[in-house]
Amino acid sequence: MSKGLPKRSEDYSLWYNELVKKADLAENSAVRGCMVIKPYGYSIWEKMQAELNRMFKETGHTNAYFPLFIPKSYLSKEASHVEGFAKECAVVTHYRLKNAEDGSGVIVDPDAKLEEELIVRPTSETVIWSTYKNWIQSYRDLPLLVNQWANVVRWEMRTRLFLRTAEFLWQEGHTAHATAEEAKAETLQMMNVYAQFAEDFMALPVVRGRKSANERFAGADDTLCIEAMMQDGKALQAGTSHFLGQNFAKAFDVKFATKEGGLEYVWGTSWGVSTRLMGALIMAHSDDNGLVLPPKLAPIQVVIVPIYRKDEEFEAISEKANEIMADLRKVGVSVKYDNRDTHKPGFKFAEYELKGVPLRIAIGPRDLENGTIEIARRDTLTKEQFELASLPIAEKITGMLEDIQKSIYEKAFTFREEKTTEVNSWEEFKEVLENKGGFISAHWDGTSETEEKIKDLTKATIRCIPLARKEEAGTCILTGKPSEGRVYFAKAY
Amino acid sequence: MSKGLPKRSEDYSLWYNELVKKADLAENSAVRGCMVIKPYGYSIWEKMQAELNRMFKETGHTNAYFPLFIPKSYLSKEASHVEGFAKECAVVTHYRLKNAEDGSGVIVDPDAKLEEELIVRPTSETVIWSTYKNWIQSYRDLPLLVNQWANVVRWEMRTRLFLRTAEFLWQEGHTAHATAEEAKAETLQMMNVYAQFAEDFMALPVVRGRKSANERFAGADDTLCIEAMMQDGKALQAGTSHFLGQNFAKAFDVKFATKEGGLEYVWGTSWGVSTRLMGALIMAHSDDNGLVLPPKLAPIQVVIVPIYRKDEEFEAISEKANEIMADLRKVGVSVKYDNRDTHKPGFKFAEYELKGVPLRIAIGPRDLENGTIEIARRDTLTKEQFELASLPIAEKITGMLEDIQKSIYEKAFTFREEKTTEVNSWEEFKEVLENKGGFISAHWDGTSETEEKIKDLTKATIRCIPLARKEEAGTCILTGKPSEGRVYFAKAY
Repeated sequence: MSKGLPKRSEDYSLWYNELVKKADLAENSAVRGCMVIKPYGYSIWEKMQAELNRMFKETGHTNAYFPLFIPKSYLSKEASHVEGFAKECAVVTHYRLKNAEDGSGVIVDPDAKLEEELIVRPTSETVIWSTYKNWIQSYRDLPLLVNQWANVVRWEMRTRLFLRTAEFLWQEGHTAHATAEEAKAETLQMMNVYAQFAEDFMALPVVRGRKSANERFAGADDTLCIEAMMQDGKALQAGTSHFLGQNFAKAFDVKFATKEGGLEYVWGTSWGVSTRLMGALIMAHSDDNGLVLPPKLAPIQVVIVPIYRKDEEFEAISEKANEIMADLRKVGVSVKYDNRDTHKPGFKFAEYELKGVPLRIAIGPRDLENGTIEIARRDTLTKEQFELASLPIAEKITGMLEDIQKSIYEKAFTFREEKTTEVNSWEEFKEVLENKGGFISAHWDGTSETEEKIKDLTKATIRCIPLARKEEAGTCILTGKPSEGRVYFAKAY
Repeated sequence: MSKGLPKRSEDYSLWYNELVKKADLAENSAVRGCMVIKPYGYSIWEKMQAELNRMFKETGHTNAYFPLFIPKSYLSKEASHVEGFAKECAVVTHYRLKNAEDGSGVIVDPDAKLEEELIVRPTSETVIWSTYKNWIQSYRDLPLLVNQWANVVRWEMRTRLFLRTAEFLWQEGHTAHATAEEAKAETLQMMNVYAQFAEDFMALPVVRGRKSANERFAGADDTLCIEAMMQDGKALQAGTSHFLGQNFAKAFDVKFATKEGGLEYVWGTSWGVSTRLMGALIMAHSDDNGLVLPPKLAPIQVVIVPIYRKDEEFEAISEKANEIMADLRKVGVSVKYDNRDTHKPGFKFAEYELKGVPLRIAIGPRDLENGTIEIARRDTLTKEQFELASLPIAEKITGMLEDIQKSIYEKAFTFREEKTTEVNSWEEFKEVLENKGGFISAHWDGTSETEEKIKDLTKATIRCIPLARKEEAGTCILTGKPSEGRVYFAKAY
């Protein structure tokens, strides 16, 4: 198969778009800004969901489901939330269609106008806290630890598959607690769950940090985040976890009777990751030949391709392939035997490279004679002849898969480190931003004014204040005012 | 805990509504017709999803995701589809809100009117077939076997939790095939998958049948269905599987190159089940004490309640409970130990009865002395003293869970059989419908006119033409015209 992928070095953005389409991950739909997630892409998302869902349950959360629609008035109840979210929304104004009298098709029935418009949820804090009001009476009802898997809509003007779409899939956790300390601990815990997921499963190193006030979630007192570095030197926010203080409890009047007999507002958190993670996964590891998937999230971990001319060769190879498959499945490796006779081996090789299958086994007649197989690694594009008698195949393959998982992470980690630069002056800042990109670790005076000025001048934003930063007095790169420590700037997706 | 459930015999409808709320399954939201699925209810739905998803994958289907919004014009492309679905829909007309100039809150921005209105999907045939046009070129691309888990919206005027809500969760399978035969086989296969799921997991006997033309899906050439009987003698359609012929292929111009070099329209199917199954599950088995859940779908299969006065008793009981839990978890039984000291055993017993936990184990100090435990069955409300030395506890419990699963099914089956009546005259039909309810097996002349007349006169509809019906000549109960066989009438949800 002809891949015809553009090179990353020539047009990173085009390379990404083409890869997403050609690897059968997603495509644009006829509805502006909404994507179709294709079966192969969705199967990666399902693997992500399964792991995240397990991690949420292990930390005591249960799933539930809340309405798609939010009454318009709800959005106004929390003052800063409305500023952030009551903008680019899909608004439902009518509830019926009818046939046009002139027979030209269906039209919106003007008699079916809603008294109050409904907003397709851009996020669910308001509808969930309006529900929590009835669920929470006493300290015995706390903590309330709920997650929802859902679709949300934000009417973005410029969309890109997975990274920014009008509709996207996500999970949103919404918890309620008796004390600020507990809620803050939950906020931190879930940020760490996201970081662990990104690093262990996506093989994606992330910086754990805190958002500046400017970049904070609308309605939160504090936003923690994980930030990743893409191959083009741009940062990508991969997950956020918000400490909501008592803001939504006050907006929706959610109080609880304390153990001591008092009545207090509840403390809240919310946290989410979305199909945007698919974009991060693709951009972090893939190359000019196509996707590179970490084995833990690859729908197919191993593909076996037979190489033959005669039918009897095919039969003998298939027998060997079936043996290998049985051995691999026993240890939980997902393996596919591509025995299609409609495509040649070369076509298949290219296809599985494009789709990022971590290991490819090729078996030909000579292999059968010699008791060997050829194993090719997708991440390094290296091949080796493997003697089947030398080691049980299951052991060989699981070892290689583990190695690939680790190796992909390390490669991304090294890249991220190389793309992180400390600067100490405004000239240096501009120079690095323009020529090298990546994270720029620099002193900032802590004001929103300076942050905005830097953004206006360079398009770089504060990605986060790293939680692990060392205390270090310094002077702001722009204003020269005193600073308490370095923050990470970058251009971002 | 005081359950305060109305009795089924007094007000079945109220009993259902109260049960759904009190057992923490779901509740109405502030958005008219939209429900909140609470964590306990959602955990049952998750178990249903997991089994169905497995069955879909075992029959070769993969999941994908298509847009929430459908351009209004799409609905008009298939003539009968538009009649069925372009009615009570949520219509998005605008994409932005703004602050009102008088400071009164947010208003819809009149400048942000969509050129073409978008419909929140009531079902996705149109948007999916418009996508399939690009996915299908040749016979090599067929069959295309895709499923989607999603939310859909139908603006119902009268709603009931799970049974009929404006927004509901479902899965919709959409497949494309090279021949009518293959598509028909798929339609039948998926109806059988649904029937098997209902019977094996929900313990719900169903009639497998075919819809009359009147009740057929809008856009289908044939609709197969499974129909269940509720305790009040009303039928409930639990799942449908549609043979779409070439209707959507023609509407969206989806053709494929045949092996022989021709160009033909593709044949389609679609099939779905929804959170309505939750309603069926609840209504089929539950009693005046609360939910009765089949063990295979119960989020908690066994609960252990300690009965004690002194702390040292509690400690000794907890030790025993932990042993039992470990043994049960080893064999995959989900078990909860309710060691709350804030509630008395009687309260806990009532709570788990209400929530339908299949087995309850109580352990008191005397049990410890005697080497016994008390095991109570939720379905029969019977208790027994069990000697722990007589049989490994895991064996005892798994045996009882299997027995409950079977027994609930058999009870529902016997009930359904008793509620199925053959009638041979119009007088008999009316009499049975009024006094006994249930399925009425009767001859019908095969015309839509007669079907509608019967519906107008009695509110009974043809639930299905059973696939297993025997050929039997007869005369229509209403018109006396000749009939080829009996069909099932009932009042229905």
